[in-house]
Amino acid sequence: MTLPSRNALVPFVSVDNMMRLVLHIGVERMLVELAQAIEADFRRWPLFDKTPRVASHSEIGVIELMPTSDGETYGFKYVNGHPANMKKGLQTVTAFGLLADVETGYPLMLSEMTILTALRTAATSAMAAKWLAPEGARTMALIGNGAQAEFQALAFKAICGITEVRLHDLDPAATAKCARNLAGRGLKLTACHTAEEAIEGAQIITTCTADKQNATILTDNMIGTGVHINAVGGDCPGKTELHRDILARASIFVEYPPQTRIEGEIQQLAPDHPVSELWQVITGTTPGRSDPRQITLFDSVGFAIEDFSALAYVHSRLRASGLYQDLDMIADPDDPRDLFGMILRAAGPQGA
Amino acid sequence: MTLPSRNALVPFVSVDNMMRLVLHIGVERMLVELAQAIEADFRRWPLFDKTPRVASHSEIGVIELMPTSDGETYGFKYVNGHPANMKKGLQTVTAFGLLADVETGYPLMLSEMTILTALRTAATSAMAAKWLAPEGARTMALIGNGAQAEFQALAFKAICGITEVRLHDLDPAATAKCARNLAGRGLKLTACHTAEEAIEGAQIITTCTADKQNATILTDNMIGTGVHINAVGGDCPGKTELHRDILARASIFVEYPPQTRIEGEIQQLAPDHPVSELWQVITGTTPGRSDPRQITLFDSVGFAIEDFSALAYVHSRLRASGLYQDLDMIADPDDPRDLFGMILRAAGPQGA
Repeated sequence: MTLPSRNALVPFVSVDNMMRLVLHIGVERMLVELAQAIEADFRRWPLFDKTPRVASHSEIGVIELMPTSDGETYGFKYVNGHPANMKKGLQTVTAFGLLADVETGYPLMLSEMTILTALRTAATSAMAAKWLAPEGARTMALIGNGAQAEFQALAFKAICGITEVRLHDLDPAATAKCARNLAGRGLKLTACHTAEEAIEGAQIITTCTADKQNATILTDNMIGTGVHINAVGGDCPGKTELHRDILARASIFVEYPPQTRIEGEIQQLAPDHPVSELWQVITGTTPGRSDPRQITLFDSVGFAIEDFSALAYVHSRLRASGLYQDLDMIADPDDPRDLFGMILRAAGPQGA
Repeated sequence: MTLPSRNALVPFVSVDNMMRLVLHIGVERMLVELAQAIEADFRRWPLFDKTPRVASHSEIGVIELMPTSDGETYGFKYVNGHPANMKKGLQTVTAFGLLADVETGYPLMLSEMTILTALRTAATSAMAAKWLAPEGARTMALIGNGAQAEFQALAFKAICGITEVRLHDLDPAATAKCARNLAGRGLKLTACHTAEEAIEGAQIITTCTADKQNATILTDNMIGTGVHINAVGGDCPGKTELHRDILARASIFVEYPPQTRIEGEIQQLAPDHPVSELWQVITGTTPGRSDPRQITLFDSVGFAIEDFSALAYVHSRLRASGLYQDLDMIADPDDPRDLFGMILRAAGPQGA
């Protein structure tokens, strides 16, 4: 066998290498830098190809492809959502993604994205809260203490200056796990028995539960004026976390309305219910929080551009970190028309 | 670092291993078995999730995602089309694909698909011709002698009993390459200076040219009665190979009408021009060739189900062949809610 040509090789960031990269950069610094990368791409939002994700639903979950392009680089993510996986000892959400060169169509990088999605989701939440949360917010309620929880807590600490996190989960073991992982990182942590207790004194309320059903994690009477709600868990049809009455009182901010109206909390509302686009808040064309008594809601479902930003960030760190391996993924014969001959030659001098 | 769990590992079929697999099985046998797999999936066509591919077009090419699912297994292909790549010494079309388990959303296999797409395209063409070409066809004109050509020739030999292939390409070097690669495989090969010469005496005419423009490889006066045309090259908006007048005279068979009307030769026709679906010919609900004087046209653009069949075929050979490597692609902590803790533990006893 001859060695594959350089064009055949696609750098691959394994789970192991992604963990090393996170540890190398530092979790909080990486969350800050990811939030900067995502915010920078939100500023050039109109430039991107945008399409609601391409979902394949089954009784038990969903598999989605999330493509986008800025005209120079193309990216997509494969991601599943299977709430019942947890009971099988599997991840509810797993993901991987790819960047490619628009000019040639050749892949630039393949990467695990289960960890990267957890990071970019938290970075996006905190970036949005930076624009929407009440001035001087220091306490966050964190309802749902599963795989996303620690990332949210640290992103809000690093990006928004949160100093206290009030934890609640229906399963106390999840809260204990979360508190253990966050210990010694400069956050005051309070385990709470109920959601009501968790939101006491919190200026920011983050919900990241995983049930695939119309749950009601927050009811209207629980929500006082002036808070910011970061609703992360409601992210597909039939999966919501907030009571409809809260939505009616809140100023709602979304990533990409055509997708959020299908997947977000606002699937409970009329299709023309007014919402603001986060990128327009960032570019200054739409107001963010305009009143200290206002309830702001970031109805987060996750959009392809955030994954693009995260992949591009990892790609930019590849050469310096060396944390990748080359995959022989692209057939690249010396004469591009001689794909068949490449196979024949692989047989060696004895022939095929 | 601890070793990743079994769930974290995704079998990956590299280009090198795909070449070994083709050589191990034998090109012609693999084409026959792929055609059988594709035909079997066409028989259960209504079962599959179907959507036109998700294309990201640029000035210079296209990058596409082609997902489908049979309810148990999900598959998608990433594929680009960049006609100008050849002049840069790159492949016009490169591809890779993935199978996943619908029940968990976890990937089952990642595979190169540049070679596999060439094989499945040829297998689909020959499978269609088996149903549509005139009885006793033994001679095929093969116009366009690029990367797809040898696969087409061998598929039509192995599946349809073609004994003579008449080769033509605007570039004689491509024809010479094709004839050299096909030498000694039991086909009579005739190099022709013009397309007109190539189609002399041919009952089947295959066009697989690559220009991204409305080319006219075949004009109306060239096409006699009774032939079968296998039009492979016209496969995206603005890229066709046949003169419109031929289409008006032919009985047209397609894979998935909503996609073919955008991408195929029939983009030149009215959106309600009658076409037959190949799967319905195979299941016996639509007639195939009904008259020896009829011109049949398979307006092939390539559909996601064919890639699904090809990936499933390769997956079924994985364990026996051993021609794969395991990729650490899925983050799979022992406690699925403890993704963050998995990163911490990756730092070792010293801590992060």
